[in-house]
Formats: sequence, structure tokens, C-alpha cells
Amino acid sequence: MELDFVRWLQTNLDGGHNREQLQNDAASVEWEPGKSCVVTTDMIADGSHFVLDQVDPRRVGHKALGVNLSDLAAMGARPVGAFVSLLLPPANPEKLAREIMLGMLPLSQRCRCPILGGDTNCWDGKLVINVTAIGDAPKENPWKRSGLIAGDLLFVTGDLGGSICGHHLDFEPRIEEAQFLRDNFQVHAAMDISDGLALDASRMATASQCGIEFDEHTIPVSAAARSQARNASGNPLKAALEDGEDFELLFAIPPDQVDELVRCWPFETRLTKIGRWTAAQGIWLKQLDGRSVPLEARGYEHKRTL
Amino acid sequence: MELDFVRWLQTNLDGGHNREQLQNDAASVEWEPGKSCVVTTDMIADGSHFVLDQVDPRRVGHKALGVNLSDLAAMGARPVGAFVSLLLPPANPEKLAREIMLGMLPLSQRCRCPILGGDTNCWDGKLVINVTAIGDAPKENPWKRSGLIAGDLLFVTGDLGGSICGHHLDFEPRIEEAQFLRDNFQVHAAMDISDGLALDASRMATASQCGIEFDEHTIPVSAAARSQARNASGNPLKAALEDGEDFELLFAIPPDQVDELVRCWPFETRLTKIGRWTAAQGIWLKQLDGRSVPLEARGYEHKRTL
Repeated sequence: MELDFVRWLQTNLDGGHNREQLQNDAASVEWEPGKSCVVTTDMIADGSHFVLDQVDPRRVGHKALGVNLSDLAAMGARPVGAFVSLLLPPANPEKLAREIMLGMLPLSQRCRCPILGGDTNCWDGKLVINVTAIGDAPKENPWKRSGLIAGDLLFVTGDLGGSICGHHLDFEPRIEEAQFLRDNFQVHAAMDISDGLALDASRMATASQCGIEFDEHTIPVSAAARSQARNASGNPLKAALEDGEDFELLFAIPPDQVDELVRCWPFETRLTKIGRWTAAQGIWLKQLDGRSVPLEARGYEHKRTL
Repeated sequence: MELDFVRWLQTNLDGGHNREQLQNDAASVEWEPGKSCVVTTDMIADGSHFVLDQVDPRRVGHKALGVNLSDLAAMGARPVGAFVSLLLPPANPEKLAREIMLGMLPLSQRCRCPILGGDTNCWDGKLVINVTAIGDAPKENPWKRSGLIAGDLLFVTGDLGGSICGHHLDFEPRIEEAQFLRDNFQVHAAMDISDGLALDASRMATASQCGIEFDEHTIPVSAAARSQARNASGNPLKAALEDGEDFELLFAIPPDQVDELVRCWPFETRLTKIGRWTAAQGIWLKQLDGRSVPLEARGYEHKRTL
């Protein structure tokens, strides 16, 4: 989900022609003056992002589209359409393709993101799916992870941690919530949490050249993280901070909008105020005893990056 | 390269929300009234579209971007940017990625199609590359394969056949030529030849509800097709008609523009008038003796379609 590829390109190659503005996990393309198009692309593969033998292919289809829609939500973009490339293994490819699409279409419809095109191939390897999603964001106000400013308060949607128990396949990208925020509030910074709250928040803090402090008692720990921790004698808070693939929205708004946001939030999706901007760089956890301790920017590196 | 996937979707699923206009191998997305965005996506894989052990990875990179740019050219679209997803095999992935990009960037620069984003993963399978390219086409005049009308004459760029000898990796997408045509002539129908002239022309004829007649003596047979035919005692004309992956532009213009086009053509790329619209459906070959015989719509089915 990260733009490691582009960063690597820019670092390693003469990318002088390659200077479009990159934001969050999507790229913004200026289409004409004042009109931007947001594009995101993600490739997922059997054995790396899911294990086809162990899951319903519909959930794989849902995930393949969902990770891209989550990227669009993180920019406050309205989905326009998606393009799906499939590389199908030799065993019964037509059935597999149908199942994948049956998993993708309900999400496509809910998020008003029609599947407009694609490319289908068979080969002798494992299943690979690439989805490219296009969205519409006003140039004046594309959300970035770098926009956090003094006084901002941080919110998160949903519950965090334990996604490996199923949420990483079944999550709902926060498209509607993002549209509501975009239409009604002044979002200074946003991203979707794909590599864990701590690691992703550290990226937002670094990009914004500030720090972020979380309140320990407010972190919304998921039931899966609690249950998993009980079974493995683990730490559910640690899971909420460091597990990957939550695909929840982390965003910052100015303090004078907080009450209004909490009062008006029209969704069943939980909304939690979890922290605030700090001048001290890095990420911090304000413990129950009131002390603020540094948090390690650890998370789920869900892909080998170059 | 075909939109088999979308056709299959539309045939097999309740694709009622999925009714954007599809043209050629790319999809056209209406961005705002009067402004369309053209999107094309292609996935190529080691063992299916190239054999990594036998070729310079730079040529693979060139091809991965080139097939998408060829699709944009077929619609007369101006490239805006490309998004590249890589799934890299375990052996020295960073080196491989660099080589692929070094093959892609010169083409990206020549065609003014910057690489704006992407996704990079490693896995234990073979190399897979997905490229999505976005282009800009005026809504009033997007080229389609269905636009051939009575009187039109057909032209083709470059030489045909024998692409397996190297052209399928090293071809130059006809972006510049397409821009010149779009700016100066009235192109009624166009497509890029990816599955062989006969098969692709039959698709244009079917889409346009007419026939196409080629002049046998004008078909531009490539040197590779001739040489290959000599070695294998084959038929170079058959190769020019049926070999795949030429990635040349096949297009139709009205008869009163033919002289002007031939006089003004500013490119080194060969331009050949090869045929004409016919009322009789199907595709036809006008032989040297003046007789017109039906041509089989055979070509290179370069992927297993569903």
C-alpha cells in the first residue's frame, strides 16, 4: 500500500520527469487547472496477502477492491471507478474469477465505484489480483498525512488490532465516513491505518514535522485483539497499536470542530478521539497515570519493500 | 489486452451498475460533462508474455508500459501518467526492479507518460507486472473500433508479422502518430493490432457492422516475417495477417483526406494504405489477380480468455 516503489524510483533513478505531487498512498494527477484525479493501485497475491486454500475467494475479491477504496477514503476522494486485473491459476479459472467478482461487486455497489475495465489472464502460477481505483478530489482540499498542525485533535474510526482473525479480509473501507467528513469538517490530515496505528501515526507525525500523543485509555481495542491476547497471553493494547491491516481512518481536525463532529456523527462505525498534536516529535502514549511515554513506531510491515 | 473480463462480467453477472461506455481496449470515464478520462490496464507475467530467463528485463519493462500506451494510442488519447505494480521473484528483486524501470523510463519520457505511482511486492512466484495508464481524450471524438463507415479507407503503421523475433518486446507504441492524426485528420475508427491484422480487423468490421477488404499486394510484411518464413518454409503474408503483438495502429479515414495524409505524414514510421470499407460483412483479401476472397479471422489469442 505504500508508495515505496515511487520513493525508490525517485531515490534510485533519474526521476526528473516524475515530480507529480504524491499524497498518502495515492497519487494526485492534475487533470486540468483546479481539477484533480486521485489514483491508487494495489496488487495482492496468494500466499502473501491471503491464502486461497483457506478462504472464500469472495473475501479475496472484497479485499482486493477494499484496500484501494481505503486509500481513496484516506484522501477524502469520491470513487469514480476501478480496473481489475486477474492472473488466474490453472484449476477452474472461470469459477474462481466469478467468485472473486461476486465478492467485489457488493462493495463496488455500496461505495459507488463501478468496475469499468480490466485484464484477465491464466497462467501456471498462483492467483494475483491488481486493482487500480480512480477518485475525484477537489484540488483545493486533498487530504494529506502531512497536514497536522498545532492544536489538532486525532480521531480514529472503528476498532483496532487482531485483523488477522478475519478483519483483514472483511473490513469496510471508510468511504462514506470520509465523504461526510469532507463535506462537513475541516480535515487537516488523514491516512488509512494499514500497517498499524503506531507505525502509521509515526509517518503522519514525521510528514507533519510534529509529534502525536495518544491517550492509552481511549485506544479502541477490537474484540479480536482482546480474544487473541487472552489465548496467547498477549497484550491487546499492543495488538491495537501494532497489528496491520485495520484499514480504519486516522484523521485530524481543529479543536473547535470536535464537539460538532461528535454530536453529528451519523454512522454506526465507532468514532474515537484518541490523541492530539504535540510539538515534541515522535509518537507518545499518555498512560493512565498521566505520564507520557515514547511509543516505538512498530507495526506490520506487510510487504517486503525494496 | 482485450476487455474479455468486462464482457464476461457483463454477460455473467448482474452488472447493472456497470454501464460506462467501453471503447477499444480502454475504458472511457466521463470525468465531468464534456471531459473524458481514458484508462487502460494490462498485466503481463513471466512464462506467459515473456520468458525472463531469456530476455533483458529492460525489454520486459518497455513492453509492460508499451502495451498500455498502444491502447491509449488506439483511442487517440494523450498519455497523462502510468501506475506500475510489481510482484518480484525472490532472487535479487531490487536489481530486477531497477532493470525493469530502466527499460520503462525512456519510453515513459518519449511518450510524456510519467510514472506516478505503484505498488511493489516480493513473493515466491514468478515476475508479474501490471501497468495502468491514464489518458486524456476529448469526449466529442474518442476513437472507437466501431466507427468505420461507407467509403472509408484503411491505413496501418509499421510492418506486420514475425513479432516473436523481438518486435513483441521492442515495439514502439504509436502515441505520436496518433496525436498527429487526432490533431489533423478525421479518424473514423481505430485500434491497435495486438492479436494479428486479420483477427483484429474482423473485430473492427463486426463492431462497425460492415466488412473490410485488404489489398494483398499492399500488406506491409515485416523483414522478420519474411526471414522467419524462409527458414520455416512458411508464408510471410500469412504471418503478417495472423501473427500477434504487432502493436501497430490500424485506422480509417474518409477518402477525401487520403492524399493529404499521405503528403503530410511526418514520421519515419511506415504508413500504408491497406484496404477499404465494404458493404459485404467479414474480411476480404483482394488478390493480385483482382479477385476478392474471404479471409479467416485467425490470429494470435495471446491469452486464455474466460
